[in-house]
Amino acid sequence: MSEPRDPAAEAGKLDAADALAALRERFVLDDVVYLDGNSLGALPAHVPARVADVVRRQWGELRIRSWEESGWWTAPERIGDRIAPLVGAAAGQVVVGDSTSVNVFKALVAAVRMAGEGRDEILVDATTFPTDGYIAESAARMTGCALRPVTPAEVPSALGGRTAAVLLNHVDYRTGRLHDLPALTAAVHAAGAYAVWDLCHSAGALPVGLDEHGVDLAVGCTYKYLNGGPGSPAFLYVRRDLQGRFDSPLPGWNSHAEPFGMTPAYAPASGAARGRVGTPDILSMLALEAALEVWDGVSVEAVRAKSLALTDFFLRCVGEYVPDGRVESVTPAAHAERGSQVALRCDDAGEVMKRLIGRGVVGDFRAPDVLRFGFTPLYVGFADVERAARVLAETLG
Amino acid sequence: MSEPRDPAAEAGKLDAADALAALRERFVLDDVVYLDGNSLGALPAHVPARVADVVRRQWGELRIRSWEESGWWTAPERIGDRIAPLVGAAAGQVVVGDSTSVNVFKALVAAVRMAGEGRDEILVDATTFPTDGYIAESAARMTGCALRPVTPAEVPSALGGRTAAVLLNHVDYRTGRLHDLPALTAAVHAAGAYAVWDLCHSAGALPVGLDEHGVDLAVGCTYKYLNGGPGSPAFLYVRRDLQGRFDSPLPGWNSHAEPFGMTPAYAPASGAARGRVGTPDILSMLALEAALEVWDGVSVEAVRAKSLALTDFFLRCVGEYVPDGRVESVTPAAHAERGSQVALRCDDAGEVMKRLIGRGVVGDFRAPDVLRFGFTPLYVGFADVERAARVLAETLG
Repeated sequence: MSEPRDPAAEAGKLDAADALAALRERFVLDDVVYLDGNSLGALPAHVPARVADVVRRQWGELRIRSWEESGWWTAPERIGDRIAPLVGAAAGQVVVGDSTSVNVFKALVAAVRMAGEGRDEILVDATTFPTDGYIAESAARMTGCALRPVTPAEVPSALGGRTAAVLLNHVDYRTGRLHDLPALTAAVHAAGAYAVWDLCHSAGALPVGLDEHGVDLAVGCTYKYLNGGPGSPAFLYVRRDLQGRFDSPLPGWNSHAEPFGMTPAYAPASGAARGRVGTPDILSMLALEAALEVWDGVSVEAVRAKSLALTDFFLRCVGEYVPDGRVESVTPAAHAERGSQVALRCDDAGEVMKRLIGRGVVGDFRAPDVLRFGFTPLYVGFADVERAARVLAETLG
Repeated sequence: MSEPRDPAAEAGKLDAADALAALRERFVLDDVVYLDGNSLGALPAHVPARVADVVRRQWGELRIRSWEESGWWTAPERIGDRIAPLVGAAAGQVVVGDSTSVNVFKALVAAVRMAGEGRDEILVDATTFPTDGYIAESAARMTGCALRPVTPAEVPSALGGRTAAVLLNHVDYRTGRLHDLPALTAAVHAAGAYAVWDLCHSAGALPVGLDEHGVDLAVGCTYKYLNGGPGSPAFLYVRRDLQGRFDSPLPGWNSHAEPFGMTPAYAPASGAARGRVGTPDILSMLALEAALEVWDGVSVEAVRAKSLALTDFFLRCVGEYVPDGRVESVTPAAHAERGSQVALRCDDAGEVMKRLIGRGVVGDFRAPDVLRFGFTPLYVGFADVERAARVLAETLG
């Protein structure tokens, strides 16, 4: 059987066969092709009513009673447990709160402290989203470590007896490259160091397997593939057997064993709550909790399968429509090395993206020359993909 | 002219003469006497519609475009500038984001770094809300300083050539005592150290005068007297002439001079933005921005005058209604030493507060033996105060 030559017709067939296609109805969407869910996920349809209830009834009527009666106080752990299966973690190891940057700081400092005396070097992904590098530099400075930027491929040879911790990205924010979390984690452990993974571009996009692969600590954001809303709080994973040794550099009262005891001496809580700091931002947090309900009955494995089909199809459509050499994919072709986005390099990427957005295809631009397209299987279909590639070709032409 | 003997009649007269009485209509309130605005402020009436717009239109329709078109990106500085006049700061010195605990960490570490070599001691208010003490301990540990807890009264004699920074509360969270910010700041400066003030219980309750009194750094929460909603983001003040030396321990990408340059080398932004860290929690933040509109046309000085009248009247009603010795006020009688709350000590405070709440008078309990009543002049009236004291007397009887 020969491959269909008409991508539009093929898209129709793929959409008709897509078991996840109906999930699109769980979101507020219009006729724009939204390929920026790797920056800000679309709005789940039931979230506005839930947020309205939090504001009007929980805050407006119950007021202070909501800390207990509406479950505000326990939200960070409860929502953490809702995220946990999406990243392959058993309950009790994920807590929600603060920004990704703040959580990177907690995780990295805690990892260095776990490594102990004699280990005074932090390895950081040299291609990382910048904030991880900036925060790693501060964590190194404040723990008396040296910071050594290396590419993920160089990590195995860079590891040594001095290595305390390694901060890596599961998926590169710019290229969409998926790094080998199991192998790199094993290498870090073989060197006696601790692995901290940034899951911003993989949580909700593909299986992570934190428990299965023995990851030590991980952080991730919730406003990309988890659709939690603009700036929704990040999450922190601390493997259960390390929680007793998690020594936070931000020991706020929410992480105290007895937060309302109001004692001057700090005593850390047990479990995931040890990663908390101050009062949680309830509106953002409960919007996230509502948003996570779109995952009811959805497996990350099915999402991953569709994600690969979408990015495969996009690359094929681009190959079909866009003149050779006009753009170059910097996203790996191999499935094992690809996240849920496609990054195309072209010299005038900034201008091209503006025109694309003007024509209803929304991706984003990353300096200096990358067009970034994120594929969120919960609400992006194959016809969207075909249209995006077609409009891209017209825009580039 | 003799003082009226009937507190209920007096309350009516005081309410009739209250120029701020009409502000109550700006809030969603019921027949409960809400004296817990020092823990969670009441819901401003126009906030639900504004939050709904942020969710449905800004997030749901504009999506990623809102970072620019809806002013999301600049919200931390813009809202900081709205808070600034309420704490006596000129524009460009306050930024909103993160929790109070996280901001205490930023401010204290930055203060120690400003103090420089040879100054290796941090003084912290020994009676502080615990989180400040826990975070100060971490800041001390991570900057190689000793931490020395002292009462605010002991600060002048504890200051010396080793003192790097002093972390103080403007108003004590438990007793409601107002500390002498101008005099203590001057003493800290005379010793060559830096003053960090926690304004959680004074911002929005009384004039602070940050610029006037030369405060170096300050933090505060926005969900108490500023009514920003549960866990709304905190604020950080860095005096303008110190901003160039503000060396943050949490240098996230939002504080970079060129955040979208995606450069691996960190270069701090100028101005208040240097205090930012990661992506701001937009829903919580824009709810706060809307909430701050209740301050339109309202002066903090007028609020302070009414606050003192309310707490005076409450103490008088308690004296009238409650048998001598049944409760003891731990809030100073002198206006210059009183914040906007009254704290009453009684052995069975925990049980008493539960009964009070059951009867529609909402304050809170602070272990081990304190009944806390906060007075928010924007929506609490004198009849509320009389009723609270009367119900308290009945509850205690």
